[in-house]
Amino acid sequence: MDACGLIVEYNPFHNGHLHHLVEAKKESSASCMIAVMSGNFLQRGEPAIIDKFHRTRAALAGGIDIVLELPFVYAVQSSDLFAKGSVQTLNEIGVSSICFGSESGTTSNFTSSYEIFKEKETIFQAELRKNLHKGLSFPDASKHAYEQIGLTSDEMDLSQPNNILGFSYIKEILDHDLAIKAFTVKRTKSGYHDQTISSTIASATSIRKQLLQEGHITEHSASTFPNSTKQQLTDYYHKTAVWHNWEQYFSLLQYRVMTMDHNEIAAIHGVDEGLEYRIKKTAKHAQSLYEWVDAIKTKRYTWTRIQRVFVHILTNTKKEHIQLIKTNESVPYVRLLGMTKQGQAYLNQQKKAMNVPLVSQLTHHNSPLLISEEKASNAYYSILKPSLRRDFIKQEIGPPIII
Amino acid sequence: MDACGLIVEYNPFHNGHLHHLVEAKKESSASCMIAVMSGNFLQRGEPAIIDKFHRTRAALAGGIDIVLELPFVYAVQSSDLFAKGSVQTLNEIGVSSICFGSESGTTSNFTSSYEIFKEKETIFQAELRKNLHKGLSFPDASKHAYEQIGLTSDEMDLSQPNNILGFSYIKEILDHDLAIKAFTVKRTKSGYHDQTISSTIASATSIRKQLLQEGHITEHSASTFPNSTKQQLTDYYHKTAVWHNWEQYFSLLQYRVMTMDHNEIAAIHGVDEGLEYRIKKTAKHAQSLYEWVDAIKTKRYTWTRIQRVFVHILTNTKKEHIQLIKTNESVPYVRLLGMTKQGQAYLNQQKKAMNVPLVSQLTHHNSPLLISEEKASNAYYSILKPSLRRDFIKQEIGPPIII
Repeated sequence: MDACGLIVEYNPFHNGHLHHLVEAKKESSASCMIAVMSGNFLQRGEPAIIDKFHRTRAALAGGIDIVLELPFVYAVQSSDLFAKGSVQTLNEIGVSSICFGSESGTTSNFTSSYEIFKEKETIFQAELRKNLHKGLSFPDASKHAYEQIGLTSDEMDLSQPNNILGFSYIKEILDHDLAIKAFTVKRTKSGYHDQTISSTIASATSIRKQLLQEGHITEHSASTFPNSTKQQLTDYYHKTAVWHNWEQYFSLLQYRVMTMDHNEIAAIHGVDEGLEYRIKKTAKHAQSLYEWVDAIKTKRYTWTRIQRVFVHILTNTKKEHIQLIKTNESVPYVRLLGMTKQGQAYLNQQKKAMNVPLVSQLTHHNSPLLISEEKASNAYYSILKPSLRRDFIKQEIGPPIII
Repeated sequence: MDACGLIVEYNPFHNGHLHHLVEAKKESSASCMIAVMSGNFLQRGEPAIIDKFHRTRAALAGGIDIVLELPFVYAVQSSDLFAKGSVQTLNEIGVSSICFGSESGTTSNFTSSYEIFKEKETIFQAELRKNLHKGLSFPDASKHAYEQIGLTSDEMDLSQPNNILGFSYIKEILDHDLAIKAFTVKRTKSGYHDQTISSTIASATSIRKQLLQEGHITEHSASTFPNSTKQQLTDYYHKTAVWHNWEQYFSLLQYRVMTMDHNEIAAIHGVDEGLEYRIKKTAKHAQSLYEWVDAIKTKRYTWTRIQRVFVHILTNTKKEHIQLIKTNESVPYVRLLGMTKQGQAYLNQQKKAMNVPLVSQLTHHNSPLLISEEKASNAYYSILKPSLRRDFIKQEIGPPIII
């Protein structure tokens, strides 16, 4: 049985993802579709609107056969580490292909760009360093560096967010010579960052924004995502009376920062160049998370970067916790969140050949990554009522979801 | 102008304190009465029901001339460090006498006990260690050790809480040969720990308990404390809709512990002998602070000890933060919270002769103790609404209260 991996930061809100899935099935002709999904915190440095278990159910009901968790330490990261975690997870589970969405939509452009990049990598790195030194943010600095080596052309524009991610996947595969075929499908209609729902294929950001603003599923937003998602959103809200968003964590985070010393903030992953002083100084004046991020933001520190740092403070993720994954070649385990019967058959076929353990529960902490996972999960649920908190955390030690 | 110091953990709820003040004035014939008061967290490891600034106003309105803050790092401690901080603070401000309440009520019994203690200190220490080794709690272990050297007799029963504190004051004075005369007045009617209001001189514990249970000031509880206190309690509640108690901090503390590694909990002051495992293990099951403490409690770990550890986790107070005060002979500064005109005159007279700075605002952090003070204050107010939190924290950088 062949499997194809989807490295969307799997967010089941999205008719676009269904479209992507259909395309991926067609292109790969694989009989098992595997999604690597971020856990409770997303790449852009935000809590997921509903937890990973409910999103897993939505993904399985929507046509995915196996849902794997992208370990927390890879999830809330810039594209390189995010790609490393996702691609290596899919490689360990033995997929023969991966399919990713991109603005480009042409697979060959990615591979030819990789060759150009490899050839001119020294120039790229020097430009990148120079730009960072000038005080540019990482996205701006790398955009200009790509410009310098001709990778922001119409064929391959590496200033587009999904192209950047896709390029990182390709890089991970080719750098490590993995036996995975990669192909891309074109992102249709709405871009990654669009904030208004403009068609039935809307960006996850815009849907999330509308849901949180309206506080319920409007007819309009309902048309943009599958029924399986609607059901899980409703179910989660029914149980918890919560759809997670950053503002709900504001008091916790402010309390935390205001009881930390500067050197403790500086030990948190992502806090560099004296950012700890800026975070601490602005903490006491902020009356909301939005105000706080806005007060910290500069040309160098983007909104996304600050949000990621906030996730790492909230979850107590230190530089030392991340160091490990920078040096490791692959992921230390593969975590199974859920599967269908078809997925189960695939796993039975693959399990023996795997080089790393297939983990479903957090009970046995053999890996420091699982400890980080547990802390992230504890932080995520901390805004629920005490009794719910306990029950939802228990999901982490339950069996995988099977539908 | 002569000053007399009151080392009550000044809690202005208490008609007993008024009585104590009257007695102290009479006995000392001093014209300036100075109280050393715990800040926002009390010796027993609990948040104060209203903040230190409102309690300062109550104390000044109730007849105290100067209110000094016992630094946080000394306040939530067993009697030795608590006594060191309070006595040394009063010594630095130049009091000629101190007056403390005790079950004994006879000053000469304290001094003669000190002599017996000094003579038999080696036996005492050996007994104490032996008892601790057996697994007894510190209070039980020292009680039995005092028994061994004959200091639990009717004349001087060092198993009584106020006698223990008083004895620690005397020890601090005589060990350091301070030019302070000490005398004691008998604690009337209600003991330190009494939980029901049985007379108009009630224990602070029982009053606090009734206030929190009833949620308002009943006629019955009103009769047990001065009008100045009643006014500040009402005022604080009117502004914040909060009377502080541990349960309000439960979610914060649980979140905190559940995102800490074992070694981080072990670094917190008061966490010894593997207590970190017990704290962490019980965290996920607890649905209230009461339940949590109850789950941790053993013969060795008393309720008070666990509550103190909880204060230190909440405020992020590590062993290294406390190490400093263990080795220092005296306090590094004296913090002024409030004064009357009379108090101001006394301070003008004393200021030049002082060996340590007289501090009123937290703006200039010259001392690590002030950083701990700030963190404790931030943690204390973290349960208020964001706008109130900011305003109340600002009091820390305001001028002292003058009435």
